[in-house]
Amino acid sequence: MSARIQWIAACLVALSLVGPYAATADDALDRSKLVSDAQAHFASLTPLTEEAKQKIGDPLAELGRKLFFDPRMSADGVWSCMLCHQPMLYGTDAQALSRGVFDKFLPRNAPTVLNSTLQFKAHWDGRFESVEAQAAHALLGPGFGNKDNVQAMDRIKRIPGYTELFHQVFPQEEDPVTPANYGVAVGAYERTLLTPSRFDEFLDGRQDALTPAEQKGLRLFIDAGCVNCHSGVGVGGHSFEKFGEVSDYWLATKSLKIDAGRFDVTKNEADKYVFKVPSLRNVTQTPPYFHDGSVSSMSDAVRIMAQVQLGADLSNEDAESISSFLSSLKGELPANFTTTPVLPPWPFQSSATTDQ
Amino acid sequence: MSARIQWIAACLVALSLVGPYAATADDALDRSKLVSDAQAHFASLTPLTEEAKQKIGDPLAELGRKLFFDPRMSADGVWSCMLCHQPMLYGTDAQALSRGVFDKFLPRNAPTVLNSTLQFKAHWDGRFESVEAQAAHALLGPGFGNKDNVQAMDRIKRIPGYTELFHQVFPQEEDPVTPANYGVAVGAYERTLLTPSRFDEFLDGRQDALTPAEQKGLRLFIDAGCVNCHSGVGVGGHSFEKFGEVSDYWLATKSLKIDAGRFDVTKNEADKYVFKVPSLRNVTQTPPYFHDGSVSSMSDAVRIMAQVQLGADLSNEDAESISSFLSSLKGELPANFTTTPVLPPWPFQSSATTDQ
Repeated sequence: MSARIQWIAACLVALSLVGPYAATADDALDRSKLVSDAQAHFASLTPLTEEAKQKIGDPLAELGRKLFFDPRMSADGVWSCMLCHQPMLYGTDAQALSRGVFDKFLPRNAPTVLNSTLQFKAHWDGRFESVEAQAAHALLGPGFGNKDNVQAMDRIKRIPGYTELFHQVFPQEEDPVTPANYGVAVGAYERTLLTPSRFDEFLDGRQDALTPAEQKGLRLFIDAGCVNCHSGVGVGGHSFEKFGEVSDYWLATKSLKIDAGRFDVTKNEADKYVFKVPSLRNVTQTPPYFHDGSVSSMSDAVRIMAQVQLGADLSNEDAESISSFLSSLKGELPANFTTTPVLPPWPFQSSATTDQ
Repeated sequence: MSARIQWIAACLVALSLVGPYAATADDALDRSKLVSDAQAHFASLTPLTEEAKQKIGDPLAELGRKLFFDPRMSADGVWSCMLCHQPMLYGTDAQALSRGVFDKFLPRNAPTVLNSTLQFKAHWDGRFESVEAQAAHALLGPGFGNKDNVQAMDRIKRIPGYTELFHQVFPQEEDPVTPANYGVAVGAYERTLLTPSRFDEFLDGRQDALTPAEQKGLRLFIDAGCVNCHSGVGVGGHSFEKFGEVSDYWLATKSLKIDAGRFDVTKNEADKYVFKVPSLRNVTQTPPYFHDGSVSSMSDAVRIMAQVQLGADLSNEDAESISSFLSSLKGELPANFTTTPVLPPWPFQSSATTDQ
């Protein structure tokens, strides 16, 4: 019996030496170097997540959470922040271009709301300095379709309960139901929507948090130059870049429409075809890709970026290897995102209007 | 010190005798009679809920849950079952008439999906015998807008993961991705969406589960005749009735359009203006009311029903008393409804199509 246990133990040791995680001295060195190289380019989300956790459920973020999910402030009563940023689709709508009220298309692809607050500006063209500003303006955009701020605020005030909640979190203000405060509340909620992943564990020093295949992809991601733009805590999201720096982006993506990008905001010729470099966190969960959703496969998107931004012709194998690394950026969906809040119902007590 | 404790104890006893729940012998008799009267008209949801709980999370109901929340089988990629039956709005869309794909209105108000399986038929006009049949047909209706079943099933098959899940739960079938099986899966999920309430505790014999005001409302609900139609485990949902049996419903509701109701299905003159009597569970959470959402206040709806169905002219006080009872039909939202499933993403590995 004891001999049998020894035999099993010996087999387990042998397996651990020949298995996919078998490490030679060289491998160990490579792995240590990969961790330190990665630490030089990226930052772990862990400390920010700890900070955000303390905000979950506070009255401001909870108000924002209700507003985020409530369709009743849109012109048709259907659209809400949630509809372009669905929890069940990793904070996206899984569409090339989003739709808004009255069946109108929005001009660009809806990026995931997850980790959006790690980015230096909001929208593909960096139109807004913060998620708060973005949310405050969304009420008048094609997604919500309110004709002006008075109409948008009226829609909120008609729903009993909201005005009181605004008063609770903005106690100094006489009429706190304002677009700016709406943005502050929704933004406070969005700042809790962070999704740490195995990559953060790797950055925090746990070398086996990434599989050998993912580590190989990370090595390529760094060496090929993807990391020039996709770095930092968001793995992107902190700079503008011109699409097609090296070769023709628009041909590669088969885009139906040439988009002037940041030029729309600045009217500066130098900003033509310039877009915010997006965060790649959860990117494998959020196809289709690019500002117009023109590419639906992750490794196609990787190959196109390498080609038009870096002038590199990646093999299929390398593109899939990088995709494999990118899959390690998938985090858990936050519970305050997948669990929907219960919204204040319309008033149900009688009003004088229908009394005879 | 001991005298002081005795004095406090005496006060507590005194308070319990004069408080709102103070019971005389007569009150106790009345309450017992109310429980037995209620038990004669209604049935507790408790046993069904226990049964449903065992189905939560089984592979069939889980597949149905994913399908329920997935917008990618609609013609515009936005609409899903969830959009007319939002968890955050107690399984409704809080609209008078629902919208479907391409900004078209649906002909009637979307009832809550909660407890819908307690009803004998689906839709206001009883068009479908079961929620399974309703779900299977919805894919071609204005909500989803598929042109035919082939198109609808193709949309499901394009999303990797679903075909395998269908095979798992329908192992005998060669091609299990069919409208009928879609309906069976979605229906299985819907059958778990039951919301027991304080009223069930009352029916189960816990007399203080309803407040005195709610008990008074229940007494009125029974004595005024509301219970003639709204009875059973669903507090309604087991019969057809003609709107405006006694006086003119359409004037009372200020409806914009006269709706022929079940006549649309049977073409039988006797079915003109006949509708399914809806379940009243969670009704205070699901305004606006009636098949066209023409009335937004609960007690207005109560007064109108009394007037046109029973020929009774309820006072404001009585209508609000009945509303108060109805609020005891509010249950907890099920966790497998408020927690959204994560859906299979679009494929992210490269396809041959864009390979050069």
